[in-house]
Amino acid sequence: MRRLRHPKAENKKTVIIIGGGFAGLAAGKALSNNEDVHVILIDQRNHHLFQPLLYQVATAGLNPADIAVPIRAQFSDADNVEVHLGRISAIHLKEKYIAEKDFELSFDYLILACGAQHSYFGNPQWEDFAPGLKTVEQATEIRRRILSAFEEAENELDPEKQKALLNFVVVGAGPTGVELAGAIADIARTVLVKDFKRINPASARVMLVEAGPKILGAFDEKLGRHAMKDLEELGVEVRLNGKVENITASGVQIGADFIETKSVFWAAGVQASKIHLDPDVESDRAGRIKVNKDFSVPGYPDVFVVGDMASFELSPGKFLPGLAPAAMQGGRHAAQVIREAIEGKPRKNFEFVDKGQMATIGKRKAITQFKSLRITGFTAWMMWLFVHVFYLIGFKNRITVMAEWTWSYIFSKRGSRLITERDWKLKP
Amino acid sequence: MRRLRHPKAENKKTVIIIGGGFAGLAAGKALSNNEDVHVILIDQRNHHLFQPLLYQVATAGLNPADIAVPIRAQFSDADNVEVHLGRISAIHLKEKYIAEKDFELSFDYLILACGAQHSYFGNPQWEDFAPGLKTVEQATEIRRRILSAFEEAENELDPEKQKALLNFVVVGAGPTGVELAGAIADIARTVLVKDFKRINPASARVMLVEAGPKILGAFDEKLGRHAMKDLEELGVEVRLNGKVENITASGVQIGADFIETKSVFWAAGVQASKIHLDPDVESDRAGRIKVNKDFSVPGYPDVFVVGDMASFELSPGKFLPGLAPAAMQGGRHAAQVIREAIEGKPRKNFEFVDKGQMATIGKRKAITQFKSLRITGFTAWMMWLFVHVFYLIGFKNRITVMAEWTWSYIFSKRGSRLITERDWKLKP
Repeated sequence: MRRLRHPKAENKKTVIIIGGGFAGLAAGKALSNNEDVHVILIDQRNHHLFQPLLYQVATAGLNPADIAVPIRAQFSDADNVEVHLGRISAIHLKEKYIAEKDFELSFDYLILACGAQHSYFGNPQWEDFAPGLKTVEQATEIRRRILSAFEEAENELDPEKQKALLNFVVVGAGPTGVELAGAIADIARTVLVKDFKRINPASARVMLVEAGPKILGAFDEKLGRHAMKDLEELGVEVRLNGKVENITASGVQIGADFIETKSVFWAAGVQASKIHLDPDVESDRAGRIKVNKDFSVPGYPDVFVVGDMASFELSPGKFLPGLAPAAMQGGRHAAQVIREAIEGKPRKNFEFVDKGQMATIGKRKAITQFKSLRITGFTAWMMWLFVHVFYLIGFKNRITVMAEWTWSYIFSKRGSRLITERDWKLKP
Repeated sequence: MRRLRHPKAENKKTVIIIGGGFAGLAAGKALSNNEDVHVILIDQRNHHLFQPLLYQVATAGLNPADIAVPIRAQFSDADNVEVHLGRISAIHLKEKYIAEKDFELSFDYLILACGAQHSYFGNPQWEDFAPGLKTVEQATEIRRRILSAFEEAENELDPEKQKALLNFVVVGAGPTGVELAGAIADIARTVLVKDFKRINPASARVMLVEAGPKILGAFDEKLGRHAMKDLEELGVEVRLNGKVENITASGVQIGADFIETKSVFWAAGVQASKIHLDPDVESDRAGRIKVNKDFSVPGYPDVFVVGDMASFELSPGKFLPGLAPAAMQGGRHAAQVIREAIEGKPRKNFEFVDKGQMATIGKRKAITQFKSLRITGFTAWMMWLFVHVFYLIGFKNRITVMAEWTWSYIFSKRGSRLITERDWKLKP
């Protein structure tokens, strides 16, 4: 095991960033071409993923590559930033080094930005039957399940089984759950309806199950009610106060009801990604690491945690939301603190600029909440569209996504209705 | 087990088509909206794949969905054509029914069009280390391996191992092998070269190994030599008369030389897809079923085999080539024979219209052979481009592919540099 000091970091401070999501990428960008630091960004994936549009991949509207860009391509012009594909096995906070399978690497500053993953509330066995929506692979798996369900229903001779195959259950009515349920209803009723001859895809039953008393809990109550009406118009059955008791290969138990289905999708709990810290530090129930007002970890002023992995208290009991703009601001702030610390300047506390939030419901409705503004319907959807295209990385991706959406909007077609298998060795 | 007679086929003849590739799709189209027949097209996949461009997916130039369309979407307007996703377990030629897992289905006419798959010449264990290029999954697996090799090389501290990681070996110098090797050399030298900081991707060694004495054996000798020069200019090492003795996790043995590499790709032998026929019929060494001049199977006038699965002798010792235009013509001919047989007309023999052949070498060169024409260089490449875009199914795919190519041509970028994993349960 060799503990390396990076050769290019001779007269510079080494900053290691773990994670190339919104927070880590923003931190890396904010340190690009800074002469004082050498940056090493490490991720398990080679791509940065625009997660807010992942539900579009899951419902055959966009290609994975439309919303993913190679992380290293973002730093082509930054001589001081290196990108590595790798998986960190441990982080030693006191001795200030990270360990990978093959080597150890010292840092002067560390930014942890590993994001969040799904939490099945102590029922990890549910994952097989109810994939979440955080990675490209999960999105194509959900797409495979949705499209296969219609194909199997078309082949099914038993009317009861056929009906069950057309049941779709989305668990969790945050933005992801709402967007996914809306898109499934949409694809069934406007896209697939033209192509099947034995079944009627429009008869598919799409249920959105929420444990709480309302959908889109983070939004204004009025907006949530509006979204609920929009969802119901789309044909989504919303079930509030629905507690998922069990999920099996044959269906989902919600309270006293058993819904027979092979298509359950999980958009409920999240928890911070786990990484082995030595020594361990304080985290909240969802595994988020508690951070100071400058995103540093208490006791370790040179270690920062940003994005969905951090628990940042804005005011007593009120936390920084797990949204892309907040993650990007956090990443940039940690980078700024590091830059200024090197220059000997005092640390500044983070000031959150609330960019509001939005969620889309089906193909032409959305809700937007920004400061005191509350917008619904088509106007909100146009805003949603503009913001999401604007923040996509890469000129080409923006063009492609606009083209895909225009196409899908006008012709009610979905460009990526591919069922791909996991096993590449299957014969053609 | 129920032997079904399709309800819609009451007063019609039932035609079952197995396989939605070029041949099967063409047959289905040729029978669409014909009042005499009810058509059931069955495929294991939900999509028709434009295989000639699959090497572009493998080298991150195109998205899978750019070259794949749902089979059933091709028959939305054909009331007499049903599409089923399914896997046939056996075909009973005498009793005229097919068996699937759950049911049996009678036919009046059968068109077999299951295509071909790779053959490792009796070494199936090589497949793990040398995937072929016939399915979307194989293409994304090859893409994963190519991109991961560069990522691992960037991380590798041992210079010998680093060098080995940048060795790429393509086995088989037919059009697929030539196109794949050219595209790997191209992506290394023009696309990736900008993004890596420790390694120089342009130093990657791309080898094309051919067992025979020349590349592109099906082409005119002069064209083959031209293509060889183009390949060498691109930086591809062509090795003729190179016999692959063994492929393992650490490399490939070619004659007396062992090339250390984790990136071997198989574009050598093909064999017809296997399907259980009862009784069995005569086939050639590559598993292709011998057919009469009307594509019917000797002894079974109502069973036709078309596309790569058929061995059709044009003249003594000369066979119908395994190319898309030949497959489409064969599918259409079988459909015509069926239509005319129902009308009581005599059967016509197939007349092959040779559309020539082409292969592309890298980003701006190709060779084209059409009747007495022999074209090379940029002109041939423009023809290649035009033909491939023209034959792509779907207006949107044509637009998208042209846009991707224009983008890639002008900016030397590749839009789909995604490493996706096989396991969707991996955490983000």
